[in-house]
Amino acid sequence: MTLDSGKFVLFAGILIAVLVNLTESGPVALRNAGDWDSVPSIGTHLVRKRSPTVNERPGCKQGAIPSPNRVNTTQRLVDLREQMATYNISAYIVTSDNAHQGEEVSPHDHRREFICGLSGSAGTAVITKDAAAVWTDGRYFLQAENELDCNWILMKQGEAGVPSITGWLKEVLADSDVVAADPTLIGTTTWQSNEKELAPITFEPLLTNLIDEIWTTGRPPLNDKPGFVLHLNYSGVSWQDKVAMLRAELPKQGADALVITALDEVAWLLNIRGFDVPNHPVTLAYMYVSMDKLVLFADTNKINSPEMQTHLTGVTQRPYTQFVAELPELVKSATMVLIPSQFVYTGGSSYAVYNAIPEGKRLLKTSPVLMMKAIKNTVEADGMMNAHLKDAVALCDVISLMVEEVPKGVAWDELKVSAELLKYRAQQQVNQGASFTTIAGYGSNGAIIHYSPSAETNKVIGNTSLFLLDSGGQYYDGTTDVTRTLHFGTATAEQKKAYTLVLMGHLDLARLVFPRTAKDGRVDVLARAPLFEQGLDFLHGTGHGIGHFGSIHESPTRVAIGSSVENKFEENYFFSDEPGYYKAGDFGIRIESILRVVNTTFKTEFPDRFFRFEAVTLVPFERKLIEIDMLNDGQIDYINEYYTLIRKKVGAEMQKQGRTRAYNWLMSQTEPLQSTIDSGNASAMNKPIGMGILAQVLISLLLSYYIVKN
Amino acid sequence: MTLDSGKFVLFAGILIAVLVNLTESGPVALRNAGDWDSVPSIGTHLVRKRSPTVNERPGCKQGAIPSPNRVNTTQRLVDLREQMATYNISAYIVTSDNAHQGEEVSPHDHRREFICGLSGSAGTAVITKDAAAVWTDGRYFLQAENELDCNWILMKQGEAGVPSITGWLKEVLADSDVVAADPTLIGTTTWQSNEKELAPITFEPLLTNLIDEIWTTGRPPLNDKPGFVLHLNYSGVSWQDKVAMLRAELPKQGADALVITALDEVAWLLNIRGFDVPNHPVTLAYMYVSMDKLVLFADTNKINSPEMQTHLTGVTQRPYTQFVAELPELVKSATMVLIPSQFVYTGGSSYAVYNAIPEGKRLLKTSPVLMMKAIKNTVEADGMMNAHLKDAVALCDVISLMVEEVPKGVAWDELKVSAELLKYRAQQQVNQGASFTTIAGYGSNGAIIHYSPSAETNKVIGNTSLFLLDSGGQYYDGTTDVTRTLHFGTATAEQKKAYTLVLMGHLDLARLVFPRTAKDGRVDVLARAPLFEQGLDFLHGTGHGIGHFGSIHESPTRVAIGSSVENKFEENYFFSDEPGYYKAGDFGIRIESILRVVNTTFKTEFPDRFFRFEAVTLVPFERKLIEIDMLNDGQIDYINEYYTLIRKKVGAEMQKQGRTRAYNWLMSQTEPLQSTIDSGNASAMNKPIGMGILAQVLISLLLSYYIVKN
Repeated sequence: MTLDSGKFVLFAGILIAVLVNLTESGPVALRNAGDWDSVPSIGTHLVRKRSPTVNERPGCKQGAIPSPNRVNTTQRLVDLREQMATYNISAYIVTSDNAHQGEEVSPHDHRREFICGLSGSAGTAVITKDAAAVWTDGRYFLQAENELDCNWILMKQGEAGVPSITGWLKEVLADSDVVAADPTLIGTTTWQSNEKELAPITFEPLLTNLIDEIWTTGRPPLNDKPGFVLHLNYSGVSWQDKVAMLRAELPKQGADALVITALDEVAWLLNIRGFDVPNHPVTLAYMYVSMDKLVLFADTNKINSPEMQTHLTGVTQRPYTQFVAELPELVKSATMVLIPSQFVYTGGSSYAVYNAIPEGKRLLKTSPVLMMKAIKNTVEADGMMNAHLKDAVALCDVISLMVEEVPKGVAWDELKVSAELLKYRAQQQVNQGASFTTIAGYGSNGAIIHYSPSAETNKVIGNTSLFLLDSGGQYYDGTTDVTRTLHFGTATAEQKKAYTLVLMGHLDLARLVFPRTAKDGRVDVLARAPLFEQGLDFLHGTGHGIGHFGSIHESPTRVAIGSSVENKFEENYFFSDEPGYYKAGDFGIRIESILRVVNTTFKTEFPDRFFRFEAVTLVPFERKLIEIDMLNDGQIDYINEYYTLIRKKVGAEMQKQGRTRAYNWLMSQTEPLQSTIDSGNASAMNKPIGMGILAQVLISLLLSYYIVKN
Repeated sequence: MTLDSGKFVLFAGILIAVLVNLTESGPVALRNAGDWDSVPSIGTHLVRKRSPTVNERPGCKQGAIPSPNRVNTTQRLVDLREQMATYNISAYIVTSDNAHQGEEVSPHDHRREFICGLSGSAGTAVITKDAAAVWTDGRYFLQAENELDCNWILMKQGEAGVPSITGWLKEVLADSDVVAADPTLIGTTTWQSNEKELAPITFEPLLTNLIDEIWTTGRPPLNDKPGFVLHLNYSGVSWQDKVAMLRAELPKQGADALVITALDEVAWLLNIRGFDVPNHPVTLAYMYVSMDKLVLFADTNKINSPEMQTHLTGVTQRPYTQFVAELPELVKSATMVLIPSQFVYTGGSSYAVYNAIPEGKRLLKTSPVLMMKAIKNTVEADGMMNAHLKDAVALCDVISLMVEEVPKGVAWDELKVSAELLKYRAQQQVNQGASFTTIAGYGSNGAIIHYSPSAETNKVIGNTSLFLLDSGGQYYDGTTDVTRTLHFGTATAEQKKAYTLVLMGHLDLARLVFPRTAKDGRVDVLARAPLFEQGLDFLHGTGHGIGHFGSIHESPTRVAIGSSVENKFEENYFFSDEPGYYKAGDFGIRIESILRVVNTTFKTEFPDRFFRFEAVTLVPFERKLIEIDMLNDGQIDYINEYYTLIRKKVGAEMQKQGRTRAYNWLMSQTEPLQSTIDSGNASAMNKPIGMGILAQVLISLLLSYYIVKN
């Protein structure tokens, strides 16, 4: 069949939308637009002649029936424009950030959602005197169409002809106009590039937040739960020792002082945690560390318990809201202040912080706390292993219950799975809830990479398609993140083949031995090659670092074939291995385990050259989805050793906890895999190779002797 | 056993030397120090207290017997220092470069070898009023010890405590001293960093070359063979069309003029070739291209044939030696002149060229000619395939002769193999000699990555160890580069295992399907993973681009896990796939084939996302070294398809040429491999996956209809 050209353009446009929709990944993978650097530029030849308008939105055309989810923002915009007039501002930018530039923000900080109505996690709203536009990515195009009222232009990032924020502003404003934003809610790098792009239009920092001025009713309050001390049996190293290490590091970085604005960095450095951000156990706080000063900016009610006060002896305490105001005075005695820059998942310090430090004292670079934190100490590493063991018990318990009930027709839907997981995780020692919103997607819902179930989308889990379950828990001793894809009936050949391709990639990365000098972007191809061979791929990164009772996405590790910033692995880094495959409208597959970087030695001429990975997640793969004959011997051996380990560790823990159903299921799932092909004599692989150590020593001694003699 | 500490330091030092020796690779792989960016920094804790001296050299200690290869440089140094005094210079730097910063230079340009005696390809000599030192890398430590007389300090690059050139000069000179060098023999980037590091010491460009002043007897003359035209049936596109493409590209690069100093770029752009550099079919020449000027700087005797003069109609011709002198006048009408920068294997323009262009007109960046040249046109690509076919006939002919004769006890040594290869290649149509000095290493010689046989090292090829053979030819229709590792007796289990590990990596890279957006540094891990798993590795890159009747190492492709500069693949790029394993003192293995980048399409949701590789080299692997049970089904299938192709193409060509011995050997080597394991039902792999095209079109049309309606 042929398409006439008009229809073809439309068709191409829709394909673009579909593809862009796949270019971002969720809590499971990498969230920022920059995280997936090699997203293909699609359809850039279809350049629009002008920027999008409100009238182009299908829901705003004459006669269109508005979505019931639409938020009326008319009065809010009137209020905001009144404020803008007071400050003589032509345009105001409202970001999704809080003042710490992290991935998660509390509902109190959902300013962009308030002003435009869009509830997705990513988006930036821009309001001029007579227009309003919101930029968001493919994950939220449909949602934005439903939630935005017709005051708003929808700017679909990544689509051909959609202008950048600054590009649009230059289109609609005059050179003499002033654009403003709250400099605490924009990272330094972003601020600076906006400023440069907008010139000659002025981009002005306005410390009074105009949304705060108008959002006077219905605003969720700040959480009032106090922070708490994470004891040494979980944290492993006292904050005094960490601060000493940090102070030893600062001169090597060319600085004698440091501001800490990332919440997980404050939490790690001081061994404190809190409840101020959903799924993220941190307290709102900043720090200033110099060779002789150690200042914590946090609200008194967060740190005034007697235990916390004892814990913080030696730390100067100042109110949270005073941080930016007091910085100029604080840095007076410093020569050079390190200001954390944007780095992998870490947003870096806001422009307000940067701007509060005198120009000659600014050193914008990667936070040394971030790099120290990524290497888990022995207690943290043991804790991570233990947290994942408990987490495996909880997850297997829920899965085994579903395996029992779903085929019988007991109604399980996606939301029920999320709820049950929370409940079962809570039964495990020192659980502190979820580490992110559970992604539970049956059938076509599983193919939506960023999906999390809501009342509108919730599906009953059946026995014909795949069920993708990506979830994690926070525990005092660690953070977990695991994805398994399940089937509760009889899998089709296509489902098995697709699952096995993803599994092959997952295993090939997990099995890798690699030189310590190798960077994380260089190993991703292993997780994708089996899919590539069949013309398939997944448009998100394969792996992200994970914190210890901290961030679900922790810098610096990012395993992505297209990453532009790469980092070496270090011993006791923890990160995820999560390839996937998403067949739009049909099913999604992702297999995710956390891996730990460990030393390995060989009796070859390269005895200390290599690292390998150790499995941290201990949950069986879906047995009925594995097409054994597609696996090679190395992959089968890996699974069987993994299963032996799972039986030994998780099986024992289940027995200890008296979880018979889960135990029985676990044992049935971890029977050794037997290739239907008889595995011949592989003894050649087991004979050692290379110069014996003794021979090396002898040659060296002879040479030494020769040189000494001569 | 234990070592006392003094001995340990010595022992560690020797290990460092051994390891550094492995960190560079030869014509087969990547030659510059920067090519292998992830070389481990070894023993940096063993910092020397002072720079090396002559007295430390074993051969210069009292009573040591000098090597017969030692070159007496005393008079040369006297002469040079006389020149230095005339120009009032405190130190003079002599590099290995010629004026074009390529990898190969003619003997006429071996200035560094003349002054110090070291005949290796890499090294820099520095002469002060009272000292002389030469810097070289691990490949040449032993050779330098033998060839340098005791006027020379040997600076072993990469060893702990060995200063950089500028570091040493700052140690031995006063701030008021002047260091000089010939700016035509040093690339711009190197010159600039030297200049910066030396400050406050002055680094002065001296256009009179002081070695040329004193090297008056025994200097090899410049080659006097004229250049020739490479006709359109080989080059594919006229120089007029190439110049038009280049002129269209210049504005996109931000320039309206370009200097071309790389010899292979001049050769490609003008479709001319020559004999001025060993193994490298180029004529010494420079070019200047602007929107209205096209100037070739070449000696008259190189281009004065009637055919050449007709070919060059429209090209302004100026004497070779006038290039730098005439540049200032030439660029007067240009606004911005692109000056090629250092890039992958390409040295970039010399500082003399850079310096001759006014500051405001300099644009230092990658040469657009380099990037255009890398994508072979249809005629070039077909020519490459054909050249490799002929080359396979020649190589197989020699191998089959060795297979016949070596076991019978006929004496074959490494030099004889090199000579026979030249002879057999010369029997093939339009052969133009070798593309690099053959690496033919039996037994322990094969373990020396940069080895090429000489009268002193030449080994007779036996039937107990491995024979590594890396060679290539130049043909009008293409350049070849192939390595096979052979065994003429019964292989041991260790030899077979090591060979098969290298083969597995070679195959896994060759078999890869990958997204067009993927960069070359991201796929190397596939060629190494099987070795890594056994604690093994090879300390050179896996792949380099290759020219069309041009450079053996052609930018931009470099497949290396540690590369710092990465490039995407493009359709019709040609490059090598050459993993190896080197067991010092025992044997070396390398398997190298040239691959071509080709489009591939799939009936999945990613129909046009991928490239794959096509085998260009058509020479069987060593059958008796393959441990079939270590290979997986995909690897065996690849080999069998490869062998079918070899039989079809090379077999037919051998029959046509009446080469019966070679044909019979080829057929015996290309019998299908049979796994000793019965290969079960792999049908699951063959069922298609993904949304059918029809389904995609239908969904798109429905969506289009919906949107149009709304």
